[in-house]
Amino acid sequence: MPKVGVVLSGCGVFDGAEIHESVLTLLALDKAGAEILCFAPDIPQTHVIQHNTGAIATGETRNVLSEAARITRGVIEPLSNAHPSLMDAIIFPGGFGVAKNLSSFAFQGADCTIEPDVARILRDMHSWEKPIGMACISPVIAAKLFGAEVTIGNDPATAEAIRQMGGKHIEKGVTEIHVDDAHRIVTTPAYMCEASVSEVAIGIERMVHAVLDMVR
Amino acid sequence: MPKVGVVLSGCGVFDGAEIHESVLTLLALDKAGAEILCFAPDIPQTHVIQHNTGAIATGETRNVLSEAARITRGVIEPLSNAHPSLMDAIIFPGGFGVAKNLSSFAFQGADCTIEPDVARILRDMHSWEKPIGMACISPVIAAKLFGAEVTIGNDPATAEAIRQMGGKHIEKGVTEIHVDDAHRIVTTPAYMCEASVSEVAIGIERMVHAVLDMVR
Repeated sequence: MPKVGVVLSGCGVFDGAEIHESVLTLLALDKAGAEILCFAPDIPQTHVIQHNTGAIATGETRNVLSEAARITRGVIEPLSNAHPSLMDAIIFPGGFGVAKNLSSFAFQGADCTIEPDVARILRDMHSWEKPIGMACISPVIAAKLFGAEVTIGNDPATAEAIRQMGGKHIEKGVTEIHVDDAHRIVTTPAYMCEASVSEVAIGIERMVHAVLDMVR
Repeated sequence: MPKVGVVLSGCGVFDGAEIHESVLTLLALDKAGAEILCFAPDIPQTHVIQHNTGAIATGETRNVLSEAARITRGVIEPLSNAHPSLMDAIIFPGGFGVAKNLSSFAFQGADCTIEPDVARILRDMHSWEKPIGMACISPVIAAKLFGAEVTIGNDPATAEAIRQMGGKHIEKGVTEIHVDDAHRIVTTPAYMCEASVSEVAIGIERMVHAVLDMVR
């Protein structure tokens, strides 16, 4: 039974992990018989968005680990505990939390910084030659760290930022994946495309299967 | 294309809607080609639970509608807007939010009260002979309002409360459903059982299909 780490960035598309992508990742891993280890950084969220209005809740603070625990029904570890010896692969669902909490991509684009524990675990998994799966906006992190070949769907501005970071962007649809064999990185656009939850489910499941197929 | 209302009670198993059950309901409805209308009451949550520790976050307040909007990616209506003329069926996923925000079942058991808009829409759907689906702990509301025949899995204390409220409890496993034909109510235990997300997905999808089969 392969062990797969899942890294979440909060709980809610506009300030944290995209909830559908996160649950569909857990579902696909569980259906495939994988053991799941969930992680999130124990850091404050960049901000809190009222999801029904889009307004910033000024003065409110939330913690990424504590909010991500809502998606995992309480069972989650600080990302600082993650290590390649614990798992055979790692997967990052999307959501603005990736671009706001796990990196500063939402604010700085190609000049973004990556949260230190995110950069550490991804570089370690890469050097241990363990596969990495990423959905939605998460692939920008792989472009920044590794100059990887990834898909974020077909958004021109994000594709241009990927090129500026030394990565290569491959246009794909919501139900498709792209595999960078050299870097052992599988990406799928998910909600970077205008899509329904059942279409996103197809792409996520394909990404999960491709990652599991790479486990040695 | 049938239109189905989905009523959420927040965002997170311990103080709101169970996230997996909610997403799996949306997924099953979307796969079946249904149009989805999401609702939540515009009321304060009873409390906020830190999901990684189980502690109550004293002094913090959140709104059920605003938190539920995290699960629906922002698209949601106040439950006060829900009416049987808008939809062919209605579904309630579970989570402690059902027993804490949509009712007082978590605190008062069989003597619980039901949130007024929840009671109104369920009584209206029932009188319009439109089917109702309920997962996890939600069936206690149907026992309280209608004396319905339901399943919440095999938890003896909850089954006893259902009997005290005038309902009848039928023991079922996580992948099973129970249909009360007289009341047009379909129930499934979901995370009331010790279960994995892929097992819950089977029960939820069966519940959704049974509800859709009842649409006239």
